[in-house]
This record gives sequence, C-alpha cells and structure tokens, in this order.
Amino acid sequence: MNNFEFKNPTKIIFGKEAIKKLENEIPNDAKVLLLYGGGSIKKNGVYEQVKTALSNFNVVEFGGIPANPEYDTLIKALTLIKDEKITYLLAVGGGSVIDGTKFLSAAALFNGATPWDILTQKIRTEKGMPFGTVLTLPATGSEMNSGAVITRAETKEKLAMGGPGLFPEFSILDPQVIASIPRRQLANGLTDAFTHVLEQYMTYPVGALLQDRFAESILHTLLEVAPKVLKNPSNYQAAANFMWSCTMALNGLIQKGVPNDWAVHAMGHELTALFGIDHARTLAIIVPSHYKYNFEAKKEKLAQYAERVWQITEGSIDDKAYAAIEKTVNFFHELGIDTKLSDYTIDYQGTAEEIAKRFTDRGWLALGEHQDITPEKVEKIVKMAY
Amino acid sequence: MNNFEFKNPTKIIFGKEAIKKLENEIPNDAKVLLLYGGGSIKKNGVYEQVKTALSNFNVVEFGGIPANPEYDTLIKALTLIKDEKITYLLAVGGGSVIDGTKFLSAAALFNGATPWDILTQKIRTEKGMPFGTVLTLPATGSEMNSGAVITRAETKEKLAMGGPGLFPEFSILDPQVIASIPRRQLANGLTDAFTHVLEQYMTYPVGALLQDRFAESILHTLLEVAPKVLKNPSNYQAAANFMWSCTMALNGLIQKGVPNDWAVHAMGHELTALFGIDHARTLAIIVPSHYKYNFEAKKEKLAQYAERVWQITEGSIDDKAYAAIEKTVNFFHELGIDTKLSDYTIDYQGTAEEIAKRFTDRGWLALGEHQDITPEKVEKIVKMAY
Repeated sequence: MNNFEFKNPTKIIFGKEAIKKLENEIPNDAKVLLLYGGGSIKKNGVYEQVKTALSNFNVVEFGGIPANPEYDTLIKALTLIKDEKITYLLAVGGGSVIDGTKFLSAAALFNGATPWDILTQKIRTEKGMPFGTVLTLPATGSEMNSGAVITRAETKEKLAMGGPGLFPEFSILDPQVIASIPRRQLANGLTDAFTHVLEQYMTYPVGALLQDRFAESILHTLLEVAPKVLKNPSNYQAAANFMWSCTMALNGLIQKGVPNDWAVHAMGHELTALFGIDHARTLAIIVPSHYKYNFEAKKEKLAQYAERVWQITEGSIDDKAYAAIEKTVNFFHELGIDTKLSDYTIDYQGTAEEIAKRFTDRGWLALGEHQDITPEKVEKIVKMAY
Repeated sequence: MNNFEFKNPTKIIFGKEAIKKLENEIPNDAKVLLLYGGGSIKKNGVYEQVKTALSNFNVVEFGGIPANPEYDTLIKALTLIKDEKITYLLAVGGGSVIDGTKFLSAAALFNGATPWDILTQKIRTEKGMPFGTVLTLPATGSEMNSGAVITRAETKEKLAMGGPGLFPEFSILDPQVIASIPRRQLANGLTDAFTHVLEQYMTYPVGALLQDRFAESILHTLLEVAPKVLKNPSNYQAAANFMWSCTMALNGLIQKGVPNDWAVHAMGHELTALFGIDHARTLAIIVPSHYKYNFEAKKEKLAQYAERVWQITEGSIDDKAYAAIEKTVNFFHELGIDTKLSDYTIDYQGTAEEIAKRFTDRGWLALGEHQDITPEKVEKIVKMAY
C-alpha cells in the first residue's frame, strides 16, 4: 500500500425529501446565487422544492449552464456574483452545474490576471467562496470531491482544476430525482461512475487489499443496479444504490494508497472538446483500446477484476484479463453506449494525431500509472479506438 | 436503504514516516498537551519521533492514561489543561488515550456543573478543544470518529459520549508501529474491528447493497491479514491493511443507511466494568450468544455473511446462518480469544441479573436494531455466554 493523505469534509444529506433540509445548511445572512442548467429542474419539481426550502433567503438565480460547463457562460455568472455581492453558491444540477460552480467558487476569490489562469496554470484553490449542491444526476461524483473540469468552446479546450478549498460544504442527494432522468443520461451516469472506479483500480497490484475490495464493491453494485435503473428509474432502492455508488466512486476514498491511471479521462476529454461527444461515452470509447494497448502492464488487475467482479475463474491470467475487457465492452453495449469513435462521427481521421499533438504542446508527455503513456502511445491508443 | 447524513472531516495521514508530518498540522502558536498511556511509546520510538516533530512547539505532557480511560485520571489532566492554559491536545496512543483525549476536548469547554454530566446526561459536544492523534494501536477506530467511552472505577461504570465537535482534526497512521505491539493487543485489535463491522452489518437487509459490500470487504480483509499480522507484525503490507481496516470499520461510513445493532457493545462494556476483561474479549464473549438468541431476526444477514465472507454455499438459510456463527467463534479462537465468560472468571454467577438490573436502572429498556432487546432478554443472552 502506498502512503496517502485523505480528507473529505463534505456533509452528505441522503434520502427521500432531503431537499427540505437545505435551509439548515446555508448561513441565514447569506446572499445566495442559485445555479442550474438547461431547465430540467423546472420540469421535475426540484426547482420548486429548492425555492420553497430557500423561501427565507435572499436568492439570485443564474440558469443555462450547459453540459461541459462553458467558460464564457461562467464568466457571465462571475460578473453577476460581483455585481450582486453574492456570498454563497448553490449548485442545483449534475456534474456540469457543480463543476461550473466550483470554477465560480475559485474565480470569485481569485486575484490573478484572468480566471482562465486557474485552468491553464493549474492553480490549486486553497479557499473558495462557500457552496453547496443539490444533485440531480448521479454520475461524476463532483458532489463529494474538490475537482472540476471546464470547457472553453473558443479554443476547443477542456481542462481540469481543483484544490482543498473546493469541496462542497454539503450535498443533498435525493434518489427520487432519478425517476425523471432520460435513459441516455442514466446510461451515461452508469458508464461514468464505472469508469471512474476503473481509473483508480485498473493499474497494478500494490497490496492495498481493502481499497481493491471497495473498488470491486462499487463495480459490483453498479452492474447489479444498472438494468434495474434503466428498466424503471422510479425503483427507489436501485436508484439509491446507483446514486451512492456514483458518489463513492470519486470522493477520494478508493484512490488513496493505490496507483491511479486517469489517461482514459485525458484522452476522453479531447474527444468531447473536438466532437462534443458525451463525456461518459468518450470514456467507453477509450477504455477498451487503452486496456488492450497496455495489456501487459494491467493484466494482473484485469484478471483480478475478471475473477472477483465477473466470476471468470477459468483460464490463464491473460485469458481472464482479456475476457474482462470483453465483458466490460459488452456492459457498455448493454447500456446502449457505443465503444468506437466511428460510431459517433464520420470525421474521425486525424483525431489521434491531433490529440497527440495537443498533449505534446501542453507538455503532457507521460500519462498513466507508470507515467509512460507518451503522445506517441496516445496516438496509437486513439487510433485503435476508431 | 435508509435516509442518512454523513460527514467526517478528519484528515488521515497514512504511511511510513508519517509522524514527521505532525508539525504541519498543529497551529504554530498552540500550547500543546501531549497525552499518552502506560509508556510503551517510550520503548517503541514513537515518543522520540513525536518529540522531534514537535521541537518547535510549546509542549506539556500527561502520561499514564490507562486502558478503559479512567475518569479520575482524566480529571487530573483537565486540571493541567486549565492551569497551563493549553489550547491543543495531541493523543499519542490507542483507543483509550484517544477516547480520554476526546473527553478532555469536551470537558475543557464544558460549562455544566461537573464533567461527569457529559456522560450521564448524554450531552453531545458541538465544539471541543481542537485535537489530533498519533495512532499506536489499531482497533477502535477512535482516530477517525467522534465517539468515546469513559470508565469510572468508583462506580464501576463505562459510558459513551460523542458529538460532531469531537472528530480529531488529523490522525497520523504509521503501520510501522504495529511491529512492536504485543500479540495479545493485536488479537484484541483484530477482534474489536471485526465486531465493529458486525454491529453495523449483522441486522436485517434493507437493500443497501454498497454498504453491505463495504462491510464484507472489511471483514474479508481482516480475515485475510489476521494470521499474517500475528505471525509477523513487521509485515508492513499486512500491518497497513490491518490498520486501515480498523479505521474504516468505525468511521461512520458503513453504518449509514443501514440499521445498527450495538447491543453487543452495551453488554460487553458491563463485563469490562465488572471484571476488567479487555474490551475486545467482552465482545467475543457476547457475539455468539447474541446471534444465537436473536437468530430469527438476524438469519438473513448471517446467511449472506456466510456466503460472501466464508464461502458457505451449501444448505438452507438456517444452516448457513448457523455455520457463520460457528466460523466466527472459530476465528476468535484462532486469534487466541476465549468466547465464554467462565473462561475469564470463576465469579460469573449473578452477572446476567446484575447487568439486566443496571440496564433497567438506566432506562435502557430496548436495545438492538429492532429496539426489542429488553433487560429480560439481556439477562438470557449474558447467561448463554457463561
């Protein structure tokens, strides 16, 4: 087991009617900016519940934060924060709204030349404007971590940020919100959370027995509830397990003491930036090629995953490891998620070279748990994913 | 899954040489009270490491906190805190030293008539004096939770306390400390952590799939590392997994969203108060009778535990459930832990009646996950454990 530090101060309020507890979590004298996305919260009742819970607060609203939260849109919200002297942010939405709110939390107290520096200069936020979240879409885990990913359409870039000042003070998780989520988004959420676990698990063994079993527990639970959630998103028990699994998949716990990969996300983000493909789907495109290309480095953990999660007990380590990749691809297909870039665009030629060039230009010369995924390897992996 | 709230702000610093990081965690202007137990830290090098890390701080010491931290001893430390105008507490020890420090954290800021009220009147501490810990004995999980148990020899009482103000600000976990722990204490730690998980798991199913799997992961890992730790406590990998499993066994995570029992602890505490039996051993005495007496209420989870943790796949639910109890008893025996009260004292007659009377006197009329363990049932369970 590797040395590690772990701290996660976010308060989780989980369960039916949890939104009612919102009013106890925000300081009475706060001036609140309520942030949301495309307006689905006005159709599913969440907006009304939030407004009712906040009836005694001074609230300003900012809607329209898009999927892959867009820098130019967020800059408008930042102006509003300053003009209205906002003191508390409340994100009501999925990972995009929460990530956008984290950017605003950092940018509101940032003293540099331009807020874009937070992303390009990888500035860690030690203290941000306080914020909470009401989660409406389980997927990214952003409700209980301190990271965010922001997109800039102008430059077709998608960059990560974070820091200990960017944990939500609280997050409200009511699994009842899942009943109104479209099937496409549910499939994305399942794929996203599943791949988050893989990024922290599918590396090489370091004797971290408990972390491995926790990771396998989340994978197991996602596999068990996926068909139930897709069949009937009003199944509260399935929804609750789906929601809690997504949060636990990326709240820092399972990544501690073990090597992490995250090369899948680095490549996937570029596919979203270049083609607008849903984040989760870009991960499903990259995972199979990445694991096949790096088969030797990952086969021990792939075989352990085969045995413990897929109950594949026959064959050699190589056999089991390969079968586990196939099982994973089949799982994505069963969710309705395509796993080849050419399933999403006819315009894919040159993508691998473009992504490799971007990584070279940014100095991203060594990704993955062994820090050996060079831009040359990235080019090959992305090509395998065409 | 039941509704729940979860927040755990303790920072964990885990790994080799972690004690060196101590100086970064305590405010520079703090006046520190260093608390420890019987002096084993002076033999195993931990005291020296802590003193070196604190060389730039103003430090007062208080040693001699006994196992089952004793109220009268702690009151002496409380006087020292007030006389010396201490602002920060540092517990260096196992669960007893940490629990004692939590009492002092609460008592230092308590305004009631006598600090004993914190225990008898079940006063929740919302804000205590800040404190950190350096863990020297994995077992209780006290390093990452907000609860404590305090003993008063004068009245032969052992009572629990807690509150959100009693999380350690940080806890330093260096598994290398395990190398010098006596076998008896290692066996106690393994038994204690194992039983902590059982108290939060061995109830009835509520569809909390992830919590169940996390609990099973900890049980599995403890079973896997127990023989390795006992054989060679210098085995760093086994020690690291043992230590992290003990912390995760009682940091609040696996108890959220599921029913909890804790009747085993309630009865066990009395055996320590009456006979001075090691805490962990009292749990091993009570567990088998408690599960046999409440077999019908617990057999579904007992059978799940049999299947998933002990790989018992043959037989009816009753068969599996019963076999799981036997396996658990055998595990305790393999650790060198006796499981009958008569193994510890010849003076056991009347104990069951005495404990039942104490519970009646305190108004503890309904323990366990169904709140149906009356003093009459307690009497029967303890008698079965003779």
